Amino acid sequence: MDINKYKVSSQIDISEQPTLEVVDSANKKLKKLRKEISKLQDTMYAHGKYSMLVCLQGMDTAGKDSLIREVFKDVNARGVVVHSFKVPTEKELKHDFLWRHYIALPERGKIGVFNRTHYENVLVTRVHRGYVFGENIPSVTSVEQLTDDFYHKRMEHINNFEQHIAENGMIILKFFLHLSKDEQKNRLLRRIELKEKNWKFSAGDLKERKLWDEYQKCYEDMLNRTSKEKAPWYMVPADDKETARYIVANVILETLKSYKDIEEPELDDETKANLEAFKKQLEND
Amino acid sequence: MDINKYKVSSQIDISEQPTLEVVDSANKKLKKLRKEISKLQDTMYAHGKYSMLVCLQGMDTAGKDSLIREVFKDVNARGVVVHSFKVPTEKELKHDFLWRHYIALPERGKIGVFNRTHYENVLVTRVHRGYVFGENIPSVTSVEQLTDDFYHKRMEHINNFEQHIAENGMIILKFFLHLSKDEQKNRLLRRIELKEKNWKFSAGDLKERKLWDEYQKCYEDMLNRTSKEKAPWYMVPADDKETARYIVANVILETLKSYKDIEEPELDDETKANLEAFKKQLEND
Repeated sequence: MDINKYKVSSQIDISEQPTLEVVDSANKKLKKLRKEISKLQDTMYAHGKYSMLVCLQGMDTAGKDSLIREVFKDVNARGVVVHSFKVPTEKELKHDFLWRHYIALPERGKIGVFNRTHYENVLVTRVHRGYVFGENIPSVTSVEQLTDDFYHKRMEHINNFEQHIAENGMIILKFFLHLSKDEQKNRLLRRIELKEKNWKFSAGDLKERKLWDEYQKCYEDMLNRTSKEKAPWYMVPADDKETARYIVANVILETLKSYKDIEEPELDDETKANLEAFKKQLEND
Repeated sequence: MDINKYKVSSQIDISEQPTLEVVDSANKKLKKLRKEISKLQDTMYAHGKYSMLVCLQGMDTAGKDSLIREVFKDVNARGVVVHSFKVPTEKELKHDFLWRHYIALPERGKIGVFNRTHYENVLVTRVHRGYVFGENIPSVTSVEQLTDDFYHKRMEHINNFEQHIAENGMIILKFFLHLSKDEQKNRLLRRIELKEKNWKFSAGDLKERKLWDEYQKCYEDMLNRTSKEKAPWYMVPADDKETARYIVANVILETLKSYKDIEEPELDDETKANLEAFKKQLEND
């Protein structure tokens, strides 16, 4: 798969991007990929220098949760840490908006998955500008201050933050699961109709759906301003869940493979030279 | 006191800066200042929007520990959090070099004191370049890569980080306690001669002292590149401890005072309107 097809590398118009793509037997193909991811993650863990941050964004029902479940199914639980970021807690609001994400960054050797991310600070709090007041930023006292400039500056800070961690060993991949409004309708209806899916439904989802166009505009601006060489956005058609998962798994795998220096560390010379002696010692134990 | 006298705002030559200044009855004057700091910190806590980060750097024996003890003596313990950063732990080394400092940032309303700071990453690890290898940064594999450029890039990341938190409500003050080599000798001798001070002495101190000039060079470069409007460095003559404390307290106090918008929050209109009713309710309780 040519993963570059999905990479946001030039100015894009989000409404012109396809939301539907169907790969034949995507699920079967995914199984193979995730075994490979698991193997590479093991090596990454032994190597202990890189970490990987997988950022997932998308409208409600875009398939973030099930994607995490399916793509990382075969990875050793030791090697992957998922954080689902909800409405910030009181404690989190006592810090700058990046703080709760910073402390959740994965350790060297691990994959960290952010289910919703620091980008919500230029999405949900841009569509609902009033939310920013909850952050208690001293200089922000009126809605008029929350101009495009305000959000663009946030994106700049996010770019700086990502550049810093990238230079210190973080491999960053960001996925926008691009869903159509029609498919969201289907999925929300299913949440209402199927009893076992009811718990996932909230009346708030319909309110947010009314703001569809505003969200798309914010997503577009975000994608165009924050897709960077060392922290690229991938725009993944998400109307077919299995295909979306398959594409994401491909990007993760291809990216991991491109880091040729990830390998198990060699034993130090002394230990290596004495391996036979250690063996004897154990045998005579 | 004109605190601007100590602010690093233009290119400086560290060897030309005085290390000795003696203020008359500095200790007595300090007592007054710290009561005022305490009062303003209370207001800052009630206001709950700003936080303050006090960064302390200086050579061994510069007086950082006792300065913290004396300057913050009257501040409600609830309102001040001190972090002394030592050699990074194994867990900390599993993250980028800013991580352990990021998670230690003070909450809104509080003063955070960093005793040694994120700047050690362009000081001790610049004088001892080999230390950088302990960080396991994948791209760093030889000492030749640890050029001036490498450290200047770190400073840039530090500047970006500080700018971000400053824009989100962090008041940043950075102090370099400027000690002379002669006065360090006196203080180290005292640590050896006085039994109750022995525990503070380590043979390593003498090794580091041998690298005095290298450290001064790194400090100078750091001061010149990372003193910013919203995150200034103050260079404090530190050969007289009481004077140094008095100067630092002045900078903290004057800075807090300059934020005219820090005030106790007003009660909401409804609560205010009903205060008399609440009073009656209690009286009849």
